[in-house]
Amino acid sequence: MKESETGCLQLTESGQLRHLLTLRGLGRDFISNLLDRSETYRHKPGTPPIRDKALDGRTVVNLFFEPSTRTRASFELAAKRMSAHVLNLDVNMSSRKKGESILDTIYTLQAMEADVFVVRDASAGIPEFIARKVRPNVSVLNAGEADVSHPTQGLLDLLTIRQHKQSLDGLTVTVIGDLKHSRVARSLAEGLSTMGSNELRLVAPPELVPDMEFYSQGVLVDDVDEAINDADVIMTLRIQRERIKGKSSLMTNHEYLEKYGLTEERLSRARPDAIVMHPGPMNRDVEIAGPVADGPQSVITQQVNNGLAIRMAVLSAVFESRQNQ
Amino acid sequence: MKESETGCLQLTESGQLRHLLTLRGLGRDFISNLLDRSETYRHKPGTPPIRDKALDGRTVVNLFFEPSTRTRASFELAAKRMSAHVLNLDVNMSSRKKGESILDTIYTLQAMEADVFVVRDASAGIPEFIARKVRPNVSVLNAGEADVSHPTQGLLDLLTIRQHKQSLDGLTVTVIGDLKHSRVARSLAEGLSTMGSNELRLVAPPELVPDMEFYSQGVLVDDVDEAINDADVIMTLRIQRERIKGKSSLMTNHEYLEKYGLTEERLSRARPDAIVMHPGPMNRDVEIAGPVADGPQSVITQQVNNGLAIRMAVLSAVFESRQNQ
Amino acid sequence: MKESETGCLQLTESGQLRHLLTLRGLGRDFISNLLDRSETYRHKPGTPPIRDKALDGRTVVNLFFEPSTRTRASFELAAKRMSAHVLNLDVNMSSRKKGESILDTIYTLQAMEADVFVVRDASAGIPEFIARKVRPNVSVLNAGEADVSHPTQGLLDLLTIRQHKQSLDGLTVTVIGDLKHSRVARSLAEGLSTMGSNELRLVAPPELVPDMEFYSQGVLVDDVDEAINDADVIMTLRIQRERIKGKSSLMTNHEYLEKYGLTEERLSRARPDAIVMHPGPMNRDVEIAGPVADGPQSVITQQVNNGLAIRMAVLSAVFESRQNQ
Repeated sequence: MKESETGCLQLTESGQLRHLLTLRGLGRDFISNLLDRSETYRHKPGTPPIRDKALDGRTVVNLFFEPSTRTRASFELAAKRMSAHVLNLDVNMSSRKKGESILDTIYTLQAMEADVFVVRDASAGIPEFIARKVRPNVSVLNAGEADVSHPTQGLLDLLTIRQHKQSLDGLTVTVIGDLKHSRVARSLAEGLSTMGSNELRLVAPPELVPDMEFYSQGVLVDDVDEAINDADVIMTLRIQRERIKGKSSLMTNHEYLEKYGLTEERLSRARPDAIVMHPGPMNRDVEIAGPVADGPQSVITQQVNNGLAIRMAVLSAVFESRQNQ
Repeated sequence: MKESETGCLQLTESGQLRHLLTLRGLGRDFISNLLDRSETYRHKPGTPPIRDKALDGRTVVNLFFEPSTRTRASFELAAKRMSAHVLNLDVNMSSRKKGESILDTIYTLQAMEADVFVVRDASAGIPEFIARKVRPNVSVLNAGEADVSHPTQGLLDLLTIRQHKQSLDGLTVTVIGDLKHSRVARSLAEGLSTMGSNELRLVAPPELVPDMEFYSQGVLVDDVDEAINDADVIMTLRIQRERIKGKSSLMTNHEYLEKYGLTEERLSRARPDAIVMHPGPMNRDVEIAGPVADGPQSVITQQVNNGLAIRMAVLSAVFESRQNQ
Repeated sequence: MKESETGCLQLTESGQLRHLLTLRGLGRDFISNLLDRSETYRHKPGTPPIRDKALDGRTVVNLFFEPSTRTRASFELAAKRMSAHVLNLDVNMSSRKKGESILDTIYTLQAMEADVFVVRDASAGIPEFIARKVRPNVSVLNAGEADVSHPTQGLLDLLTIRQHKQSLDGLTVTVIGDLKHSRVARSLAEGLSTMGSNELRLVAPPELVPDMEFYSQGVLVDDVDEAINDADVIMTLRIQRERIKGKSSLMTNHEYLEKYGLTEERLSRARPDAIVMHPGPMNRDVEIAGPVADGPQSVITQQVNNGLAIRMAVLSAVFESRQNQ
C-alpha cells in the first residue's frame, strides 16, 4: 500500500500512532487493532462507568476553530474518562495570518504542557500543519478537517459496521447525500478500501457530486433506488447548506426527501439485515424519513456510542506510543 | 393528595426520586427527607470541602437553553463535589423544530452515556418532555422552566425557612413582586402547601398578578404594608423585564421602591424574627432596599449556600434510586 | 520600603500571601521565596505531570470581565493541577452599577464556597475592591487589571530573568513599545525595583509614553538603538490598539518595525547573552522580527511555561496562609 506523507507523519518509527490525521496510510491490521482496542472501552449497561488512568494528570486541549457540539462533547468526555484535564478553546480567528496565529496559540499551549491537541477547522491542512510543528511528545488528533478528513468518525463508522456485519470485507455500502462537502464519507471510503474489497456506491444531487479522485473504490450511481438494491449498509448525509456558497438552486426539503431521502419504501430494497447510518445532525424527513431514523435497522445512536469508545482508544494509543519511545 | 401526572413520572415504582421536575406530587415526608439529606451536604466553616464519591465517573450535562450564571454554577459545583464529570452545553436553538432538535441532542448525549440532564428552558413542558423520552437509567433535573417550575429553588427556600423557623407549618409567608413570571414563587407555594398549613400572601403590581389557579393556598393582597404585617417570611422578587413583551407601562425604579419595595420601615411591620429572602439576582433599591438586603434579617446568601446542598442531595437521591432498581 | 495600602491588604498578619493584587509592597525575600516555590512546580521533561493535592476539592473561579485566552488557560490548568475544581465565568457587564453587580456575583459565588477568585478586568481597582469585600478565607488573584497591574506576569518575568541571569540585581533591562497601556511593564518595573538595583530603560512612541511616576527606577530613552546597547534583557510589547481611543495616527506595521521593532541588527547591540522577552500575543515583524522571536536568545515560550509554575506557586501560597490562621 502506498502510504501518503501525512500517513507517515502520524506514526512513530516503531509504527505506533502518534497523531491521528487521516485514515489514509494506516494499514489493515493497524485499523483492526484500533477497533479491537475500542471494544475494550465500550460501556456495558449495568456496569460502572469506564475509567482509565492512562492520561492521569495529562492535558487535552480541544482547539475548535469551527463550532461543534457533539464531536467536542465526545472528545471532552472521552478525555475525562481517561482522567485527563480538558481545556476547551473555541477560537474565532480571522483568516489573515491564520497560520501564524494558530502557531502562536499552539506554542503557548505547548509551553503550558498540553499533551494532546484535538483540532477542528474549516480549512484543509490545518491538523497536519500543526502536527508538523509540535514537540516530540505532543499529539494532534483531527476532529474534522474541512471536506477532507474526519478520521475518528471514519473509525467509529467502521466499528459500527463490523459489529453488525462481522467482517469489513465484501460489503456493499451506499452513501447518499451531499458528498461534495463530506469529510465523513471520505474517511469512511478510505477506511473501507483499506479493510477489504467492498463495493462503495455514491449518490449525490448533481451539484453536490464529489471529486471522484478521492473515492478510488467508489462508483457514482445516478438512481438512488438502484444504489440501495441489496446494500448491506446505507449511510445518509445532510446537505451542508452552510458550506454552499451563493444563492442555492437546491430543491426544497420535501423535494429532497422525494428524490434522495431514505424512506421505508426505499430501504426495503436493501438486504433485510442492512443497517442505516447517519453521522448527525439529522434532518428527519429530509435526507431520512423519521420512521427509518428511529426504526429497527437504524444504528445511529450506536454510532455515537462507538464514537466515545473510539476516542478513548485513540487517546490511549497515542499515549502508549509515547511510553515506548 | 392528588398527584399530578408529572409528579408520578418523577418517582420510581418504589417511590424514590428519579427525575426532579416539579414539587407538585411529592409528599410531605418525601420533601422532609430531601431536606434532611441536604443538611448532610452543608459545609461547616473550618472543615474540609464536602466531597462525595456517589457520582464518581458519572456524567452530568448542564443543558441550558436559557442563559444562567448562578444556577448553572451551582449545579456544576454540586456535581463536581459529587465527583461527576460535568459537560456544559449552552444551546441556542431557534424555535422551529425545537422538540426534534432537543430530542436529537438528548439521544446523542445519552449515547455518550450521560447520566443526568440538568435542563433550563424558557418554554413550559420541556423538562417533562425530555424525562418522558430518556432511557431508564437517565435522570432529568429541572433547573428552571418558563414561569412554571424551579423545584431545586423551591427546596432551597424551604430548607432556608426550616433552618430559621424549625417547622414548615403555621407560618405566614409574604411574596412581593413580579408573580406573573415567577417560577420561584410557584415552586415555593407548592412546597409550602405540601409541608403544612401556611398562610401565603401575594402582592404584585396590577399588570404582574399571577394566575391564582396556581396558588391554591395563596391570597392576593393589594396593600403591601398590610401583607407584611406579622409575616414570618418575606420574599421579594425582581421584575423580569426580559419576559414582559411590548412597551412596558411599568413604573420607574424609584416609584417601584416607593410602592412595593421592601424598605426598613416596611420590614418593621413583620414579626421581629422575620427573615428576608430573594432568589437573586437582586436589584438593590428597586424591589429591596440596600440596608434590608444586607441587614441582619436577610438570609439571601444562606439561600445560595443551601442551593448547593440541595443540588448535591438531589443528585445523590437520583443515583440512590438507580441502585435500588 | 514604603508599602502601599494595597500591598498591606494582600498579606495576613503573619506576613503570608492572602491575595495577590500587585507586586508593590511585597519585599525582596518574599518575592524570592515565591520564585523559589515556583521552581518546585516546574515540570521536568520526561517526568510525569506535576500534581499537587493542596487544593483538593477547593473551588477556583476564573472571573474574567475582559476576554483572555492564554492567561485564563494558564490559571485554569494551574488550578486543575493543584486538584481544584475550576469554574470559568466570562462576564459581560455593562458599566452602570458595575460595582454592585460584581459584588452580588462575588457574594453569590462565595456562598457556593468559592475559595479563590481569579479576576481580570479592564477597570482599575476592581481586584482590590473585591479583596476588601470577601470573607476571611477567600483569596483574590489579580489576573490583569486595566493598565495598572498584572502581578503573576511580573513574577513569571522575574523568574525567567533569574533563570538566565542568576541574580535580579545589577541588570540592564530595556522595555520597548506601548508602555502607556502596559500593566505588564508596570508589574515588571515594580518587581525589578524591589529585587535589586537595576537599570530600566523605557522606549515608546511619543503618543504611548507612560506616566513616569509609575517607573521610579525607569529612564525614558528616545533612541531605541541606544536603549538596547549592552542590555541584559529586552522586552518588546505589542501596541494595544483596542485600548487606543479615537482615530489613531499610529504608523503602519512596517514603519513600526523600522522605527521600534526588535530586529536582529538591533539585538546585536545588546550583550551577547541578552535574552528577548515578550508577554504575548506577539505580532511578528511588527514589534519583533520573526527570526528574533524564534531565535536562540528568545525566552518567550519559557515565559509561558514559567507562568504555569508561578500560578501554581501562588495558589499554593494562599492556601498555606489559610492553614496558618
